[in-house]
Amino acid sequence: MTLESTENSNSIEDSTNSIKQNTMQSIGANARTASHILARSQTANKNTALLCIASHLQQQASYIVEQNDKDLSNAKAKGLDAAMLDRLSLDNTRIESMVNGLEQISKLPDPIGEISDLTFQPSGIQVGKMRVPLGVIGIIYESRPNVTADAAALCLKSGNAAVLRGGSEAIHSNLAIAECIKLGLQEADLPIDCVQVMQSTDRSLVGQMITANEYIDVIIPRGGKSLTQRIGDEASVAVIKHLDGLCHTYIDEAADIDKAIHVAYNAKARRYGICGAMETLLVHQAVATNLLPTLAKQYTEAGIELRGCKQTCALVSGAKQATVEDWGTEYLAGILSIKVVQSLDEALAHIAQHGSGHTDAIITEDLSAANRFLREVDSSSVMVNTSTQFADGFEYGLGAEIGISTNKLHVRGPVGLEGLTSQKYVVFGDGHARK
Amino acid sequence: MTLESTENSNSIEDSTNSIKQNTMQSIGANARTASHILARSQTANKNTALLCIASHLQQQASYIVEQNDKDLSNAKAKGLDAAMLDRLSLDNTRIESMVNGLEQISKLPDPIGEISDLTFQPSGIQVGKMRVPLGVIGIIYESRPNVTADAAALCLKSGNAAVLRGGSEAIHSNLAIAECIKLGLQEADLPIDCVQVMQSTDRSLVGQMITANEYIDVIIPRGGKSLTQRIGDEASVAVIKHLDGLCHTYIDEAADIDKAIHVAYNAKARRYGICGAMETLLVHQAVATNLLPTLAKQYTEAGIELRGCKQTCALVSGAKQATVEDWGTEYLAGILSIKVVQSLDEALAHIAQHGSGHTDAIITEDLSAANRFLREVDSSSVMVNTSTQFADGFEYGLGAEIGISTNKLHVRGPVGLEGLTSQKYVVFGDGHARK
Repeated sequence: MTLESTENSNSIEDSTNSIKQNTMQSIGANARTASHILARSQTANKNTALLCIASHLQQQASYIVEQNDKDLSNAKAKGLDAAMLDRLSLDNTRIESMVNGLEQISKLPDPIGEISDLTFQPSGIQVGKMRVPLGVIGIIYESRPNVTADAAALCLKSGNAAVLRGGSEAIHSNLAIAECIKLGLQEADLPIDCVQVMQSTDRSLVGQMITANEYIDVIIPRGGKSLTQRIGDEASVAVIKHLDGLCHTYIDEAADIDKAIHVAYNAKARRYGICGAMETLLVHQAVATNLLPTLAKQYTEAGIELRGCKQTCALVSGAKQATVEDWGTEYLAGILSIKVVQSLDEALAHIAQHGSGHTDAIITEDLSAANRFLREVDSSSVMVNTSTQFADGFEYGLGAEIGISTNKLHVRGPVGLEGLTSQKYVVFGDGHARK
Repeated sequence: MTLESTENSNSIEDSTNSIKQNTMQSIGANARTASHILARSQTANKNTALLCIASHLQQQASYIVEQNDKDLSNAKAKGLDAAMLDRLSLDNTRIESMVNGLEQISKLPDPIGEISDLTFQPSGIQVGKMRVPLGVIGIIYESRPNVTADAAALCLKSGNAAVLRGGSEAIHSNLAIAECIKLGLQEADLPIDCVQVMQSTDRSLVGQMITANEYIDVIIPRGGKSLTQRIGDEASVAVIKHLDGLCHTYIDEAADIDKAIHVAYNAKARRYGICGAMETLLVHQAVATNLLPTLAKQYTEAGIELRGCKQTCALVSGAKQATVEDWGTEYLAGILSIKVVQSLDEALAHIAQHGSGHTDAIITEDLSAANRFLREVDSSSVMVNTSTQFADGFEYGLGAEIGISTNKLHVRGPVGLEGLTSQKYVVFGDGHARK
């Protein structure tokens, strides 16, 4: 669906569409205007806004919890499952965590306006790059209402106007948070349209957002794979997206066995449900006998189900036979598939075939093997002798994270403030003309 | 059209499609395989390939000219215009220029594998970024056969496999050049599928290329606006594109008059037909009387037609009255629109409304005005006291250029080798597990 497609419409259905379009058009036009002001606003104003929003969230905590209760009641009445209700739920601790997030983002360096690589060229002109906002960022997310504050803060600090479209199940919570954002923007003398939280939960608005090329520069979906996949398929606006996190750890023949057990255990057992959790363990045959029984015992004690290749099953009592589907499954659960490989080449081929390009690690003391793995594995994060669970914006020193990109273009891996910016060329002369 | 859409086809038409698809599928799969080998190939091999290709182009010059003659005869028979015939035509000078291009690219530093920003994090892990190829790049271009060699060289050096789809009018020339590329790749022990020049000129292949998400990572159209626009609209693969170059020069009230005349004349009169040529001159009212008559005389003597606002027409005899359309037109010809503005703000507003985000310049000695212009103009290149004609990869020190991007994401402005790469995170630990 494009904004143009129903422009000259006559039927009743079309005229309804046309009202919706006006809504998206006015939201988009307001965002665009606000983005120009925000792009040139000073760091101090942006930080003031962040701190004022934080302060309003604190002051309005009981109101937010009250509005969240409405969402929770509706969700229970609709029979949403326990995991969904947990994601939807806000209490004082979670509100405090939003407040801390805003305060942290206010302390990060402002990426906007930074000029780098400024060098003189043979013609006499001086050429460099200036970091600039992308413009307007559309965020489409599901049940977690904390995304409203987190995403608003990251967009604001990086000088981008934000159009936020949360799930209908969180609408009361989102609008309560939106009210705090609005007050904070006003106190910092920034246009309230810098952050617009959609008040309508009409599903067709998502379709309009992802095709509003005139108004929105990039869409970031935050939610399950089906949402992300659909947005990726249907959007004409550029999308920074995170699909699967099917992460591997490969224990090389030259691995230090103690390090390998320590790291491989952590990669799976620390938390199952995050995208950086290991889903498949690859073990070189030279170390499998020595290492797998011990490691498997630890996994089993942690309640992790093991599914292995034939060699694994021979070494690990209690391991089930893995099927072909297992190698391609992101469990996000207490299940691990294990494969014994004959060589580094086989490990690389397995990762190339089954991996999702998210995060993969090698455990080895062999520099050549480490270098080959680093160079040849085509994933957003490639690791040596450490846990895939480290794939995270905070752990990488970005200070904040809006998600992890599995795109190849623009930004790959954890996305912080810099991922929400672009660079333009700046050129200085002193009356220079081109020959 | 997606690759999946006719998979289970039965009719005769569908089975024809399915043969075409197999072609695109096999080209795509071969490119993907070659890209993995190329991504890990050494700099020396890539440079050897470039120099061998250059050498074969030199040796085969008369064969290439002969094949080009076939294209030219066909084009003449079809009644193509003189400009088109000129773009299509290859002679020894143009072949020598391709050869020089290849040699220059062989001398540029290899961007692949560079690790930057490697820092220790509080957890003890070390995090950095490694520059990597994008994978497979599809180039869709029109009549200029030299693009075949230029694009192949840039993709090769940046470690990307290339799928090249030139215009049907240049097919004999392109295939002759492709033969030289193939020989060069073989001599350097690189897979010949690193660069595939499409042998079929079937138009539906373009549709298949731009939706071949599984095989192609980015599409770069090189050609007229209608081709680029269509590809941008229909592609599901990411597109690095160059749309309009509606460039402005704003002469501020604090401009040095001599510099202003020198630069503004060059910005238009040096060459009309390039995307960095100025199309609209904005002049602050405080300097218009002093400056415009002299500058207009120079333009007129260079055969440039002037179309001005009311104030301009009052100052410049012979200037035609500009219409609203003029402010939005990329002439790429000997026509210039001129507007007198009351303030820097009016200039900024005019550029925001009518500009294309390509390249815009301010002429001023006032630091505050220069800073505002640099910060607020949202274009891929923003210039101070110099000619918009400098918007060019070679002038910017990139060493080579595959085009100028008017995208905001991934890469903006002139695109050299670095624009054809991405960065992945590399993480080093020594048995570190995440808390």
